[in-house]
Amino acid sequence: MDNEKPREACGVVGVFGHPEAAKLVYLALYALQHRGQESAGIVSSDGRTFHVHRGQGLVNDVFNQRILDGLHGNIAIGHVRYSTTGSNMLANCQPLVANYRGGQLAIAHNGNITNAAELHRELEGRGAIFQSSTDSEVLLHMIAQSMSDDFEEALVTSLARIKGAYSLIFLKEDKIFALKDPRGIRPLCMGTLDGATIVASESCALDILDAQYLREFKPGEMVILDEAGARVEHPFPPLEEKFCVFEYIYFSRPDSMIGNKSIESIRNRLGRRLAIEHPADADIVISVPDSSNAAAIGYAEESGLPYKIGLIRNHYVGRTFIEPEERIRHFGVKVKLNPVRSVLNDKRVIVVDDSMVRGTTAAKIVTMLRKAGAREVHFRLSAPPWKNPCYYGIDTPNEGELIANSMTVDEIGKKMGADSIGFLSVEGLLASVPKNVGYCTACFTGDYSAGKPSNFKKTQHDVGREVLV
Amino acid sequence: MDNEKPREACGVVGVFGHPEAAKLVYLALYALQHRGQESAGIVSSDGRTFHVHRGQGLVNDVFNQRILDGLHGNIAIGHVRYSTTGSNMLANCQPLVANYRGGQLAIAHNGNITNAAELHRELEGRGAIFQSSTDSEVLLHMIAQSMSDDFEEALVTSLARIKGAYSLIFLKEDKIFALKDPRGIRPLCMGTLDGATIVASESCALDILDAQYLREFKPGEMVILDEAGARVEHPFPPLEEKFCVFEYIYFSRPDSMIGNKSIESIRNRLGRRLAIEHPADADIVISVPDSSNAAAIGYAEESGLPYKIGLIRNHYVGRTFIEPEERIRHFGVKVKLNPVRSVLNDKRVIVVDDSMVRGTTAAKIVTMLRKAGAREVHFRLSAPPWKNPCYYGIDTPNEGELIANSMTVDEIGKKMGADSIGFLSVEGLLASVPKNVGYCTACFTGDYSAGKPSNFKKTQHDVGREVLV
Amino acid sequence: MDNEKPREACGVVGVFGHPEAAKLVYLALYALQHRGQESAGIVSSDGRTFHVHRGQGLVNDVFNQRILDGLHGNIAIGHVRYSTTGSNMLANCQPLVANYRGGQLAIAHNGNITNAAELHRELEGRGAIFQSSTDSEVLLHMIAQSMSDDFEEALVTSLARIKGAYSLIFLKEDKIFALKDPRGIRPLCMGTLDGATIVASESCALDILDAQYLREFKPGEMVILDEAGARVEHPFPPLEEKFCVFEYIYFSRPDSMIGNKSIESIRNRLGRRLAIEHPADADIVISVPDSSNAAAIGYAEESGLPYKIGLIRNHYVGRTFIEPEERIRHFGVKVKLNPVRSVLNDKRVIVVDDSMVRGTTAAKIVTMLRKAGAREVHFRLSAPPWKNPCYYGIDTPNEGELIANSMTVDEIGKKMGADSIGFLSVEGLLASVPKNVGYCTACFTGDYSAGKPSNFKKTQHDVGREVLV
Amino acid sequence: MDNEKPREACGVVGVFGHPEAAKLVYLALYALQHRGQESAGIVSSDGRTFHVHRGQGLVNDVFNQRILDGLHGNIAIGHVRYSTTGSNMLANCQPLVANYRGGQLAIAHNGNITNAAELHRELEGRGAIFQSSTDSEVLLHMIAQSMSDDFEEALVTSLARIKGAYSLIFLKEDKIFALKDPRGIRPLCMGTLDGATIVASESCALDILDAQYLREFKPGEMVILDEAGARVEHPFPPLEEKFCVFEYIYFSRPDSMIGNKSIESIRNRLGRRLAIEHPADADIVISVPDSSNAAAIGYAEESGLPYKIGLIRNHYVGRTFIEPEERIRHFGVKVKLNPVRSVLNDKRVIVVDDSMVRGTTAAKIVTMLRKAGAREVHFRLSAPPWKNPCYYGIDTPNEGELIANSMTVDEIGKKMGADSIGFLSVEGLLASVPKNVGYCTACFTGDYSAGKPSNFKKTQHDVGREVLV
Repeated sequence: MDNEKPREACGVVGVFGHPEAAKLVYLALYALQHRGQESAGIVSSDGRTFHVHRGQGLVNDVFNQRILDGLHGNIAIGHVRYSTTGSNMLANCQPLVANYRGGQLAIAHNGNITNAAELHRELEGRGAIFQSSTDSEVLLHMIAQSMSDDFEEALVTSLARIKGAYSLIFLKEDKIFALKDPRGIRPLCMGTLDGATIVASESCALDILDAQYLREFKPGEMVILDEAGARVEHPFPPLEEKFCVFEYIYFSRPDSMIGNKSIESIRNRLGRRLAIEHPADADIVISVPDSSNAAAIGYAEESGLPYKIGLIRNHYVGRTFIEPEERIRHFGVKVKLNPVRSVLNDKRVIVVDDSMVRGTTAAKIVTMLRKAGAREVHFRLSAPPWKNPCYYGIDTPNEGELIANSMTVDEIGKKMGADSIGFLSVEGLLASVPKNVGYCTACFTGDYSAGKPSNFKKTQHDVGREVLV
Repeated sequence: MDNEKPREACGVVGVFGHPEAAKLVYLALYALQHRGQESAGIVSSDGRTFHVHRGQGLVNDVFNQRILDGLHGNIAIGHVRYSTTGSNMLANCQPLVANYRGGQLAIAHNGNITNAAELHRELEGRGAIFQSSTDSEVLLHMIAQSMSDDFEEALVTSLARIKGAYSLIFLKEDKIFALKDPRGIRPLCMGTLDGATIVASESCALDILDAQYLREFKPGEMVILDEAGARVEHPFPPLEEKFCVFEYIYFSRPDSMIGNKSIESIRNRLGRRLAIEHPADADIVISVPDSSNAAAIGYAEESGLPYKIGLIRNHYVGRTFIEPEERIRHFGVKVKLNPVRSVLNDKRVIVVDDSMVRGTTAAKIVTMLRKAGAREVHFRLSAPPWKNPCYYGIDTPNEGELIANSMTVDEIGKKMGADSIGFLSVEGLLASVPKNVGYCTACFTGDYSAGKPSNFKKTQHDVGREVLV
Repeated sequence: MDNEKPREACGVVGVFGHPEAAKLVYLALYALQHRGQESAGIVSSDGRTFHVHRGQGLVNDVFNQRILDGLHGNIAIGHVRYSTTGSNMLANCQPLVANYRGGQLAIAHNGNITNAAELHRELEGRGAIFQSSTDSEVLLHMIAQSMSDDFEEALVTSLARIKGAYSLIFLKEDKIFALKDPRGIRPLCMGTLDGATIVASESCALDILDAQYLREFKPGEMVILDEAGARVEHPFPPLEEKFCVFEYIYFSRPDSMIGNKSIESIRNRLGRRLAIEHPADADIVISVPDSSNAAAIGYAEESGLPYKIGLIRNHYVGRTFIEPEERIRHFGVKVKLNPVRSVLNDKRVIVVDDSMVRGTTAAKIVTMLRKAGAREVHFRLSAPPWKNPCYYGIDTPNEGELIANSMTVDEIGKKMGADSIGFLSVEGLLASVPKNVGYCTACFTGDYSAGKPSNFKKTQHDVGREVLV
Repeated sequence: MDNEKPREACGVVGVFGHPEAAKLVYLALYALQHRGQESAGIVSSDGRTFHVHRGQGLVNDVFNQRILDGLHGNIAIGHVRYSTTGSNMLANCQPLVANYRGGQLAIAHNGNITNAAELHRELEGRGAIFQSSTDSEVLLHMIAQSMSDDFEEALVTSLARIKGAYSLIFLKEDKIFALKDPRGIRPLCMGTLDGATIVASESCALDILDAQYLREFKPGEMVILDEAGARVEHPFPPLEEKFCVFEYIYFSRPDSMIGNKSIESIRNRLGRRLAIEHPADADIVISVPDSSNAAAIGYAEESGLPYKIGLIRNHYVGRTFIEPEERIRHFGVKVKLNPVRSVLNDKRVIVVDDSMVRGTTAAKIVTMLRKAGAREVHFRLSAPPWKNPCYYGIDTPNEGELIANSMTVDEIGKKMGADSIGFLSVEGLLASVPKNVGYCTACFTGDYSAGKPSNFKKTQHDVGREVLV
């Protein structure tokens, strides 16, 4: 709905060795809901048989008590999803599940396989039938067509041919394989609860379970969970780490930890740095709630200006919203955000947002603030100008739709009608985030170290256009 | 629900060359609803892209105006289903649809592939991933793994390895392939409407469309429908015809034609022959409505006894029915059938039914008739004793559950509490049905000329156990 | 959907003194489903509190196990409904329920109050607020506004002012009051099961419960069921009995008894009489299934001609049906009925139907039979020409829409394209039905002995137009 | 779900004179969703007929495009609801609608009628039938039973007998009557858009429509909207104003205006005053998001301590939530709130909440903060101790469940395990809110100037217990 924000591809979770494995996965998916709101799914295993439920919608819509009660077994994996590849159809809900000569296999994937199109053609050439239009399905077929009857060997040789970004959780009848791609682009962490091992996209999924956070996966690391315990493998040659810096800026929940740092604290630092790079002579600092709150507070602290709540977000807004025919001006924004007049009236306002995609919402916010009495509006962004699409698991518009791809910062500020505008510099960004990690900044810099995909046409691979009610 | 009757596997239909192809298929599925009530599906093609909708339930539940409006194109195929192989899960709804290197492919199947288990293993060995637990899916993989890039060639070489019973409709982007197995076990007929060609399991599906009935498919015949028109092929060496005689006895709708005979007329002949073989000194003849009406009328005509309506069927009974805890005697039967007291009172009653599976409903009917005042109850069946399971597309219980498999006719009559009992003889059956056709009578005689399957374990191939709401 | 048939207003049922009262009512409503398919409802009482569930649709759609489990208590009443007054909105589902100074009250009504408009105005004048647009609601307000605090007295004085037709069941916290209007227009019978008393519109509702049929209510009779047992009252002066003769012709289920006669037997007599009054030189007799089967068999028996099944009804047709845009000829009929060609071909056919409303379906049937090969078509009806609307609980079109109101029998026959046509005479009708009962024949003769309503505008009383999904 | 917070009874809105009246009401209800989440409803009028839709759930669940399209007319009123009286059943959804001798009438009510029980008995005594169990229904019956045929007169004489709190909107076929009780307890404001007049509980409902805020209703003021324009009446003698001070503290949305003050600004003042009354030697100030953010920022500003985000709220949590069987500690809170470890670690934390009901959530928050590393936890509340139930439209637990009713502040602090605790004083509260208004502080002081209800038993008036799916 909010097409002004980049959209995360997915959240993944796996639980090994807990009598209520599926329920723990369900709770963890709740905590990861911000990473994907189109579909949710859980596959559990009782050691021999898979139990599957997937559906479109929020975790709360897809699952109920009876369904969870039917997801037997002490092993389970789960997935929440936005579509980065593949249309939004039922067959694309993850975890994907398959029967093949090696038995049953399920997979939950966060990321984007950049050479999926080539692999797809090659697999079809050898007789594969594709049921979904997701890039993730090529993994299933690679394993099914593998020369090896040993699952781990089949998995490793298949992954060796995969390019792009992936945090992956595989479920076999009695095992979980969890791994991060060799550049470590997407997050994946590990925790423990009552002897069970839990892997998840973010640590907030551990918190909801009262589980203990152990550590973030290393790039290229694979962890095998089975009755024998947890075994760590590094099946691939090490590559330079390229952790997605946008996880800090926008995606991850502020209460999640990466290493020993809360995202909240890192965003505070981004805001402070932004205040240094782009100060303004103003009366108050406000945020575009809720994702920019931390950066706005950091900006206020560094600048010494008071932090105020100048915009209120309506949290009851659903995914579909019926507009009046005689359009109310800037309607889409009004449904979600409303200015607080007596806070803004006659004030010079610095408004902090975390990122800008098309710039249309930002322009509406400037108008809204002025109408509510703001004397000046200074727009500040706690990220650099977003100029390039992401091929590593973030749903972004075409280059042409990215406002920073075709306009200078000054032109953007003018178009938005702001009194001034300021984006955090790439240097400022890298100076504010943890130092012991390597980062992917392709969306800002165009440095696609993990490769660009050849042309992958989405619709071509749909298994018919599903006609829903 | 009514586990006293054999259950037909499926009904199939295809329409080529009509601007409202999907709507015609929908109407035809309505007319074929008696052949399968678990799921319904339609796949249409606009010449390039498939449009798919499938769901569990009756045709009326699965489709609505909006869905039908979305099934674009002037080619469409459809399917209604009972499960003979594969559990009753969403992924098993037909038509099955797939993407493979040759493009898109959909398949609607009535019948049963007796060597599916062997083919399944072989296909998995070459890397196939199975999404459903139906025997029909092996066809998709055989074509996808075929050496040939020519669809028709791939189809024919694949079918050459298939054993069992099948009436099949394949949909490609711009073609329909319809065919009957070389023994012609399951029905399939052809008709025409406004220049469009229609293929369907029974002629009643043509009647609802006001289409003209052309003819029944010949055993082993394949018809290819495309822009060039209808082309007939006979890709397989001819085998002895083995048309399912149970289509006459019970499955097909009485208004359907096979050749130039209505099923109704054939059933009347079965009833007449039954009267000759098993007369009784009685006052009235009644039927177990509705499927036995025609045979009961034939029996009455031949015997000279009056035909009366002695049992009323409640047509509003749905699939699920909540029983009281303190059980009403013979509750299941009472919900569906109620005796007409003043018709039955003090009468010697001949009751005609078409077939007997477990015999429990028949016993309840005898009790019910006596309680309503019948002085004598003579049970007559317009089919021979059913002793052997069907492997060619009819859902039957295990041998042990077939009452005629373990009891003599006399024992059955005694167990039911009838004053007399009589089954039509196999000779009588064959004497009453059209002469120019060869028949499969395996369920009565055990003559499995089309082969018996090796052990095919259903659950083994499920892609996880689907947990539904 | 089938606007060619008159539609019964309602079916009612009450159970007093059974631990599974609501479940028995539910089963009984199943058996009465033919009397109303728009909505269903049950109100139970645990002696102090009512438990209510009502909804639109068939009994099978409205209730499930959980709902039935929540309908506590050993007293319950139920209702299935077509709308004769009031639009088809949720608030009109019966039983109607109310709180008033006398406590709780629920009512299930079959019939039609002809002076409802006057009473409605009078009650509103005294401050009543109407929640439904049914005529039945005036009963609630009359009791609530009664001068008497004694419920029975309030009931009797209220009923004294009611005109028209009614079989009524009232539920109080610990009692059931069941009664028939003084002319006994609509049916109501009584039975017993395990010490519980059951009242219901027809005896088939007793049969499904395995309950014993006791007797039909007498005109003007009121039965009070409470802990003390069943007490019979006759609160009104006796009037000439006017039982609806159409219950015999069409409405009641053939297995229901009225007195010691099954409806089936009476219909057989109607068919026999019809054969005497309107013979034809023909080869076979067929019925328009299923409601005319009994009359057609009677006709065949009397005429000596063979009874054949010439039309097949599709019982899977639901309430909504999507038609193709390029209309198939006589589509509505084709969906429901299909001719049996080899039965009809080259035959002179007598087709027996039970009643004719607009005549459009009959005309389509004639065309359909001819197209299927019938050489001659002789249409026979086991009821007299229907010339006048019913004001006593049957949903009928306006006078102008009744074909027999504006055309002679010959004109009707010509319009339908039949070779001959014949309606049963009123004398023949009365000669065929039980003699010890007085009948209402207003729809045939215009003799409205129970009064005609002043103008009652339906929509005026709707509590807003309900906008449904 | 969150039984730690008081719950607002309702939000109301009315639009007169706009071609898309129902859609504007729908949008306004979105903005008022925080005032009631159990049910939503809209009644529109096209000048002659009402169009009604109501349902249980959020605005987004209850309405869709088709329903809104069916709500014709340029007048409409709407309602969102929590139950303060009456159980949560369908019949209690507002607006209530009725037919009576004066035509159609709908009503949307925010507040609580303290003498409803007496009026209910009196109205029943005169023959009224109650359909809902809400106190609001007595208003309908009073008007229907009024001696006067003039609606306005009937309304005023009825209201003259009503005690308690009410902001009311009445809809007649062609008019809206909006009014506030003589003490002005609940909010109601007026605005204008394109010539249409809008009344609503809060000004945020005007903002979403881009409507212009005019003013808050005065106590006892009635505004009549019809074709002639807006007419203001003061039908009742003036009483001392008693505006609900809890609207400032918690209920109203922070962006709503009362007079020329945003609620946000008032809450900031409450926080500042709280800092003066209850300082603490600490490192950071955090809020319990989102309702306490403004007060926490005010506290931070006054105290000079940094404001930090120490708790994250999960906004995806739905109304139902399935818990694991082996309970996770403090599970209910964990689902909604998660601490930010690196913000809290080793810090002395002041946590500001807006009010305390049972105190159980507060205790869990203290534990949660300590577990996340907080060295000290100082709990501060921007409201006085809540000791007495509200009888004027706020859903509160029994006195016994209010922790401040039975414990001293010290005891509460000890029970929660906080290092210190501080509530705002009543004097501090009144010193911080706008001076030109009179306030109801009964929940803090027990001063029930608008009267206490006699015993009103909820269940007694339910029209049967509705059994839902």
